[in-house]
Amino acid sequence: MIFENGDAIVFAGDSTTDCGRKRPYGEGLWEGLGNGYVRNLDSILSVLYPDKLLRITNVGESGATSGDMLAHWEQNVEALNPNWVFFMIGANDVWRQFDEPNLDNSKLMPDCYRANLEAVCQRTLPKVKGMFIMSPFYMEANDNDPMKKRMVEYAGIAKEVADKYNIPFIDLQAEFDEHLKYRYPAYISWDRVHPNWVGGMIIARKILQVIEAKPLY
Amino acid sequence: MIFENGDAIVFAGDSTTDCGRKRPYGEGLWEGLGNGYVRNLDSILSVLYPDKLLRITNVGESGATSGDMLAHWEQNVEALNPNWVFFMIGANDVWRQFDEPNLDNSKLMPDCYRANLEAVCQRTLPKVKGMFIMSPFYMEANDNDPMKKRMVEYAGIAKEVADKYNIPFIDLQAEFDEHLKYRYPAYISWDRVHPNWVGGMIIARKILQVIEAKPLY
Amino acid sequence: MIFENGDAIVFAGDSTTDCGRKRPYGEGLWEGLGNGYVRNLDSILSVLYPDKLLRITNVGESGATSGDMLAHWEQNVEALNPNWVFFMIGANDVWRQFDEPNLDNSKLMPDCYRANLEAVCQRTLPKVKGMFIMSPFYMEANDNDPMKKRMVEYAGIAKEVADKYNIPFIDLQAEFDEHLKYRYPAYISWDRVHPNWVGGMIIARKILQVIEAKPLY
Amino acid sequence: MIFENGDAIVFAGDSTTDCGRKRPYGEGLWEGLGNGYVRNLDSILSVLYPDKLLRITNVGESGATSGDMLAHWEQNVEALNPNWVFFMIGANDVWRQFDEPNLDNSKLMPDCYRANLEAVCQRTLPKVKGMFIMSPFYMEANDNDPMKKRMVEYAGIAKEVADKYNIPFIDLQAEFDEHLKYRYPAYISWDRVHPNWVGGMIIARKILQVIEAKPLY
Amino acid sequence: MIFENGDAIVFAGDSTTDCGRKRPYGEGLWEGLGNGYVRNLDSILSVLYPDKLLRITNVGESGATSGDMLAHWEQNVEALNPNWVFFMIGANDVWRQFDEPNLDNSKLMPDCYRANLEAVCQRTLPKVKGMFIMSPFYMEANDNDPMKKRMVEYAGIAKEVADKYNIPFIDLQAEFDEHLKYRYPAYISWDRVHPNWVGGMIIARKILQVIEAKPLY
Amino acid sequence: MIFENGDAIVFAGDSTTDCGRKRPYGEGLWEGLGNGYVRNLDSILSVLYPDKLLRITNVGESGATSGDMLAHWEQNVEALNPNWVFFMIGANDVWRQFDEPNLDNSKLMPDCYRANLEAVCQRTLPKVKGMFIMSPFYMEANDNDPMKKRMVEYAGIAKEVADKYNIPFIDLQAEFDEHLKYRYPAYISWDRVHPNWVGGMIIARKILQVIEAKPLY
Amino acid sequence: MIFENGDAIVFAGDSTTDCGRKRPYGEGLWEGLGNGYVRNLDSILSVLYPDKLLRITNVGESGATSGDMLAHWEQNVEALNPNWVFFMIGANDVWRQFDEPNLDNSKLMPDCYRANLEAVCQRTLPKVKGMFIMSPFYMEANDNDPMKKRMVEYAGIAKEVADKYNIPFIDLQAEFDEHLKYRYPAYISWDRVHPNWVGGMIIARKILQVIEAKPLY
Amino acid sequence: MIFENGDAIVFAGDSTTDCGRKRPYGEGLWEGLGNGYVRNLDSILSVLYPDKLLRITNVGESGATSGDMLAHWEQNVEALNPNWVFFMIGANDVWRQFDEPNLDNSKLMPDCYRANLEAVCQRTLPKVKGMFIMSPFYMEANDNDPMKKRMVEYAGIAKEVADKYNIPFIDLQAEFDEHLKYRYPAYISWDRVHPNWVGGMIIARKILQVIEAKPLY
Repeated sequence: MIFENGDAIVFAGDSTTDCGRKRPYGEGLWEGLGNGYVRNLDSILSVLYPDKLLRITNVGESGATSGDMLAHWEQNVEALNPNWVFFMIGANDVWRQFDEPNLDNSKLMPDCYRANLEAVCQRTLPKVKGMFIMSPFYMEANDNDPMKKRMVEYAGIAKEVADKYNIPFIDLQAEFDEHLKYRYPAYISWDRVHPNWVGGMIIARKILQVIEAKPLY
Repeated sequence: MIFENGDAIVFAGDSTTDCGRKRPYGEGLWEGLGNGYVRNLDSILSVLYPDKLLRITNVGESGATSGDMLAHWEQNVEALNPNWVFFMIGANDVWRQFDEPNLDNSKLMPDCYRANLEAVCQRTLPKVKGMFIMSPFYMEANDNDPMKKRMVEYAGIAKEVADKYNIPFIDLQAEFDEHLKYRYPAYISWDRVHPNWVGGMIIARKILQVIEAKPLY
Repeated sequence: MIFENGDAIVFAGDSTTDCGRKRPYGEGLWEGLGNGYVRNLDSILSVLYPDKLLRITNVGESGATSGDMLAHWEQNVEALNPNWVFFMIGANDVWRQFDEPNLDNSKLMPDCYRANLEAVCQRTLPKVKGMFIMSPFYMEANDNDPMKKRMVEYAGIAKEVADKYNIPFIDLQAEFDEHLKYRYPAYISWDRVHPNWVGGMIIARKILQVIEAKPLY
Repeated sequence: MIFENGDAIVFAGDSTTDCGRKRPYGEGLWEGLGNGYVRNLDSILSVLYPDKLLRITNVGESGATSGDMLAHWEQNVEALNPNWVFFMIGANDVWRQFDEPNLDNSKLMPDCYRANLEAVCQRTLPKVKGMFIMSPFYMEANDNDPMKKRMVEYAGIAKEVADKYNIPFIDLQAEFDEHLKYRYPAYISWDRVHPNWVGGMIIARKILQVIEAKPLY
Repeated sequence: MIFENGDAIVFAGDSTTDCGRKRPYGEGLWEGLGNGYVRNLDSILSVLYPDKLLRITNVGESGATSGDMLAHWEQNVEALNPNWVFFMIGANDVWRQFDEPNLDNSKLMPDCYRANLEAVCQRTLPKVKGMFIMSPFYMEANDNDPMKKRMVEYAGIAKEVADKYNIPFIDLQAEFDEHLKYRYPAYISWDRVHPNWVGGMIIARKILQVIEAKPLY
Repeated sequence: MIFENGDAIVFAGDSTTDCGRKRPYGEGLWEGLGNGYVRNLDSILSVLYPDKLLRITNVGESGATSGDMLAHWEQNVEALNPNWVFFMIGANDVWRQFDEPNLDNSKLMPDCYRANLEAVCQRTLPKVKGMFIMSPFYMEANDNDPMKKRMVEYAGIAKEVADKYNIPFIDLQAEFDEHLKYRYPAYISWDRVHPNWVGGMIIARKILQVIEAKPLY
Repeated sequence: MIFENGDAIVFAGDSTTDCGRKRPYGEGLWEGLGNGYVRNLDSILSVLYPDKLLRITNVGESGATSGDMLAHWEQNVEALNPNWVFFMIGANDVWRQFDEPNLDNSKLMPDCYRANLEAVCQRTLPKVKGMFIMSPFYMEANDNDPMKKRMVEYAGIAKEVADKYNIPFIDLQAEFDEHLKYRYPAYISWDRVHPNWVGGMIIARKILQVIEAKPLY
Repeated sequence: MIFENGDAIVFAGDSTTDCGRKRPYGEGLWEGLGNGYVRNLDSILSVLYPDKLLRITNVGESGATSGDMLAHWEQNVEALNPNWVFFMIGANDVWRQFDEPNLDNSKLMPDCYRANLEAVCQRTLPKVKGMFIMSPFYMEANDNDPMKKRMVEYAGIAKEVADKYNIPFIDLQAEFDEHLKYRYPAYISWDRVHPNWVGGMIIARKILQVIEAKPLY
């Protein structure tokens, strides 16, 4: 596994990461990590590596767009001096274009999204052991659905940014698309945006693969 | 894996199983399964086998002793016509002897415990594909601790019942003992009785082994 | 307009009708009608026909399937001796097959659905001035979506029952399909099942057409 | 209809406009618009013109007098750069003279009211496509009622201001007076000041006429 | 004063009497009497006659019509074996005809009202030292207001019943009409039906006159 | 009566005056006056003089000592430019010496109390039509009770201050002493410090005498 | 000390015993004993005799009179088969005569009180190792206070019953009288009826003497 | 006893001292002292010495480490000008190393702990009659338990600091160790860190010894 004893790992993002985490930093006991994928990941890593101390911190913010994530990056991420940084952002950039199309969404456009992602990569990449971009995703099986298309477009931008900076890209949309071949979206999410516990485990599983964790059992 | 498409699996027990499940049956969406090991197990099985429909039901009852579990067995377990039944009971039978030793604890003695376990096995074994007894456990590393000793004694009775009826015995105490070689109990439980999310994953992992699940990643 | 002064009109259904109505009967002041389409309809009728007294009652029940509606029909609908009865049911019969496919859904199958609808028609049709069946619907534009297909199948059954008993059938799916040509589902519903205030107005508008109301302005 | 795709429309006023809107701006999903006439209007416009994106914002403030509206005008209205502005104010200016006559009501007198209305017109008229003054109203049928008389006097001032600035004046008192020929005030308002859902629809209907909306059905 | 040491006095009625009284009987300390006219009356009698023990009980029921009052008469009034009985009923019989005219109001008609009043008089008059009928009232100055007219009609029936049984009739409408010559209804009631603390004192004052209390100061 | 139309009257003091008044000023509708003697007084004055507008404001502060009253005098009393000022203070100055004798009570001693009272008199007397000092009181019949003695001592100081500045002194202790000849303290107060509704009426009655109000009935 | 290992001791009474105990029996962890003298006693006995298991149960009921205590005696006390029974009752029998003198207090008279006490003694004395009557008390130093006198009268009856049945009588009034030589009642009780933590310790201390406990330190 | 009439005594520490005390200072009536050992101590001192006024203040802060205690020392302790200061700190310094070992615990190390303790001693010792260091403790009987060992190590540092400054050291660990020879930890604490009421009495008893209080009974 790539994490070493004593490493600090930070997960940034929106409500999909947040999941009710503690403030100001989501860490420690008593639901500090929220109840989403970060908790699943922490549980499994703790079970697998009781001999390693890993400081895992959830700094997701419900409702955050990529612009919000950038605006709070210093206070949420940099202040923690992490060794590893994961972020998953863009769902709200896209969603607002579909559920509140009549409001002012000018700062959510692809160029802004790309710029926001590049900004956090440029600032943080030099200071960490590694950074990971997790794709935004939409738990919709129909590839012709307009919001699915738009989400895939933003995921594509995220991948381009990852490639530009030689950062691993974690393609969660592909994971969900595979799962949706068998199950209907309502089984893992009430609104196709927020994963329930099954959806959270799909994300955690993919991260465990990427960080080369040993088998759980 | 031993579960087949369409199987109904019931988990009975005390607060360690309950974890805030829905009433009258802990199943379905919206925290129906509680947030303990049953949820972890369901998440992982759903991720592993999206092609299989498994009806997993949590009928744990916070505070239940083996006598309480037996008293509610018909309504909680038999009414569901399960194919598989798991139960984990005994923590309260033992704990009350230590935290409320001055109250009347006569129905919590080893003979009663053994009789309660035998009763549910006799009633239910003929009607199911399989039954599993999960050991009660205490997240205490010191084998000379008196409550640890007593819990191990009850776990031994549970194993004897399992052996008598040819039921698989899931030794969770051994799992926790192994983990406690590396971590202090406070890391996985605030009172050494109730596992937090890490403890719940330890239980889920062991069950996944026992039911021969395929690798998670 | 078909309603006459003094008529009693009852709306039965599930959460889409209920919308927080008062118990035991959803009528009168202070949110008695809930805040869904029944309220929209009542508002507009009150504005249009201040000279007519119409007793409009909402007896929708959140979570109800067609079986639940039938079970409570005597107490909810017949006890009111209505002149006109509208019902819209089936969304939960279908939804449970998709969001909780692993639970026991045997009573939600098409034959049961048809039988439940026929039962209420046979009992009530002879006693009223008119009865209307409103189609269940799904705010999903993609006709190949499996839950959309299933919902359309159930709407088809509802139409067959309506035709068999010479009852007007109100095709709400067609209304929503038309709207979804312009707007994304998230604009009118957070889960494609529960209409928000815009969705409620779409339903109310269609009913106003069917009952031949005069123009609003 | 006078609104064009992309237009921003703001509704200012008191509790009759507010109706529980979101803060700081009443717009978007999840009861953002409150549950009064602004919501009714938005629902119907969304149903009528799914092809037009209209940003409708409710900035009503419960309890506001014309002085309060003026004091918050920059932050509530101008900050949004609206294309169209509607306001309905004066009910509290009048009401306080009747329900708390013993307190200091010197800033609620006709001259102040007129000055407050002129101030917002002068500031905002040059920057918008159009502005509308909606009359304050009192749901009292008796024209000799002293508060009705006073409200009509203030509505007259509002009309004079509208005329002076060539702003359309929406005479809601006339709408309610017409309705009250058929129904008693208690049917549409618990205190003759706050319209319930029927009263809200009366307001929405009049606005739909004024903006030349196409028929609803 | 007509009450003697040890007398039990009961006040029956609707929300205007109830005012948040204790259940099952509104008496004793800690807001037992509610905070309406019964409390005012009790305060003043206690101040005036500290040497007399009077058991004053409030059995008003919010929302009660004359039919409801009759239905609960045995349990609310007779069970207390009062020496004196006061009741004030009819506001809801009338109000429902105006604020919910479309619901079934057949049991609220004048004949029913008269019959309900006669029934309680016949049952209770022989067992008490005295009975008083307090008029229903409406805090509306305009005698041509239709609900005012109707309330006056019901008050007239109440007077006729009082006269028929030789029971003193307390004309509260006259008291409020006098007050409304000086103050607007909103000063003493938010809806012209429920008196606030000033309105409650008007009622208490009139009762004090009728029972021939000595001067307060 | 001494108050004239348009007069502003302020009541300052501690919890005995406060009684849950509105903030920042206790006045107007909806329990603005609290539910103690100020409300009783306002009710009766409103009933007696519907032709007079009196602005009555309650600025009592629960827990206030004479020092606290002085500290907030500018903001609570002077800011209102009252015509008449009543204050009743000292209960907490005394009580703390008995229920928390071990805390630092140096600022509650007689000299401080006298100085605080003189300070508010000097500041305010020149600006008002009249000022009244209401005695602190203790609802204890036993004159040898040490807290009663101390309260009487403080009431004596209040009287001396009143005499020095030619301010009317309202001796409430005498009123309560008279009442306690007939009733036990628990009947009018749960702790002998806070009057209930009967106690509040005793205070109101005395004030009505002092201001020469006409008879209530 | 008189209690032996394994003894069950029950404390019955009113709110002074209850103090928020658990239902149906006040015992065990988590505030099961309430926070009054029973808890103090249990704490000190646990500290003094860690080698003895004593089942201490609080069955006090807030508001209970001696009649209420008798009515619930079987269910509250006898069902527990106690070895030792303590009760302290009568405060409410007396208090109601003073704070609600106008209500029907006929069942609270001395004869009833005596009979209620005798009844529980006769029923229970033959079945227990020992019974103790604790005097009702009033934290009032003035022996001429009428409620103090009445309480002393009832305490006298309690003593007579104790003497008649050769039951030890615990004179708590004497304890409080001694304390009140130094401190004012408000220091140990807000209403002279309910002891605070200091008052609870005074009771516990006296019981420790009576049961001949060894020194605490 | 060492405390003299008028002395101010302050207890500083963490949640074990805090126990829900009032803010900003934990003193006075109404649970001001919290419900832990400070309350027990105050109760017993009040019972023993009704003739002495002792100002006892609880300034414990839940969750505080020795660093937190030092940071708030001026505001919490010095501002009160105490005559006597007791503190008990270190449980959180140690606990975090075991329940959140992966977070940054660098400021909790022995050297910091020692320095924090020395700092408060140096600042305060010259200004008080006496200071007491109470040992941190862990209610664990097993001396080989790693957290017990660490706690004993910190208690040792506390003793060294006490010795260096000639301050009495109160060895609470020894008290609990003695108790745990007889009772299991769960009887006096749910997590071996927070004492329940029995544990609080053990602490209070020891302090009573140290301050040479006279016997309780």
